[in-house]
Amino acid sequence: MTPQPPPPRTAQQRKQDTLHRLEHDDDIWVATAPDNDSGTPYLVPLSFLWDGSTLLLATPAASPTGRNLKATGRVRLGLGPTRDVVMIDGTVETITRAELSQEDGDRFASVTGFDPRQLTTPYLYFRVRPQRVQAWREVNELTGRELMRDGEWSVAD
Amino acid sequence: MTPQPPPPRTAQQRKQDTLHRLEHDDDIWVATAPDNDSGTPYLVPLSFLWDGSTLLLATPAASPTGRNLKATGRVRLGLGPTRDVVMIDGTVETITRAELSQEDGDRFASVTGFDPRQLTTPYLYFRVRPQRVQAWREVNELTGRELMRDGEWSVAD
Repeated sequence: MTPQPPPPRTAQQRKQDTLHRLEHDDDIWVATAPDNDSGTPYLVPLSFLWDGSTLLLATPAASPTGRNLKATGRVRLGLGPTRDVVMIDGTVETITRAELSQEDGDRFASVTGFDPRQLTTPYLYFRVRPQRVQAWREVNELTGRELMRDGEWSVAD
Repeated sequence: MTPQPPPPRTAQQRKQDTLHRLEHDDDIWVATAPDNDSGTPYLVPLSFLWDGSTLLLATPAASPTGRNLKATGRVRLGLGPTRDVVMIDGTVETITRAELSQEDGDRFASVTGFDPRQLTTPYLYFRVRPQRVQAWREVNELTGRELMRDGEWSVAD
């Protein structure tokens, strides 16, 4: 069914492609879970800002994603199309509008094209620090997909 | 930053586009949560087969997705790119290889290009019955995004 995929990329190439997506992609899939045993997953695409080591997200405080991120401090992110993915498991710091620096707020608004500071709906910002990063395209890239572990890149630039 | 989006689609058009994706897309984002209060979300893209009313998935029984689906019977799916999404909340029935009909197994293998029945790793199949379906492209489509509620389409064909 599927045409023969190209040979697997090197670890260096995968890291380079991952950083390129973090710098240039507009949106990311954000998966969260509640802090109870209901087993209710949540998933939604959000805009983001990458600063070289963390991602900044914003979503209404009362939304399922906002409530889950604040309660658990955990997130799993999916970047790219389904046959060229970057998966990021991260820890999450909740940042109120009052706590957000003017510079970060301005940069987020400029890059994403929306400024939660201007809205009447109460928003929260969330800073995601990647702990584990994996990148693969097709089945032949499943080996060697881990690029970061315990918050440290395992691949040189 | 973003060019002016086209006017919002009608409910009928959104349903038609949703069914087209379910029939023709190769992969879907699968978000699950465990049946404990650890708040650990999981997310992975998987191939799927749509039969007109349910989606059939397959994943290793021991994978986080397999364990979560079996334990909770709940899933949230994301279909399409981030600016043209279909979100599906569904209930999940776990189906062993022995329980799967020959016909469903053959059809899954033919459509997805992989046949878990041939693998040595133990796989489970999962039948997802959509309970809620939403579809939107840009912010101007957030109103009217709900197309199915409580397992019933709220939009005529």
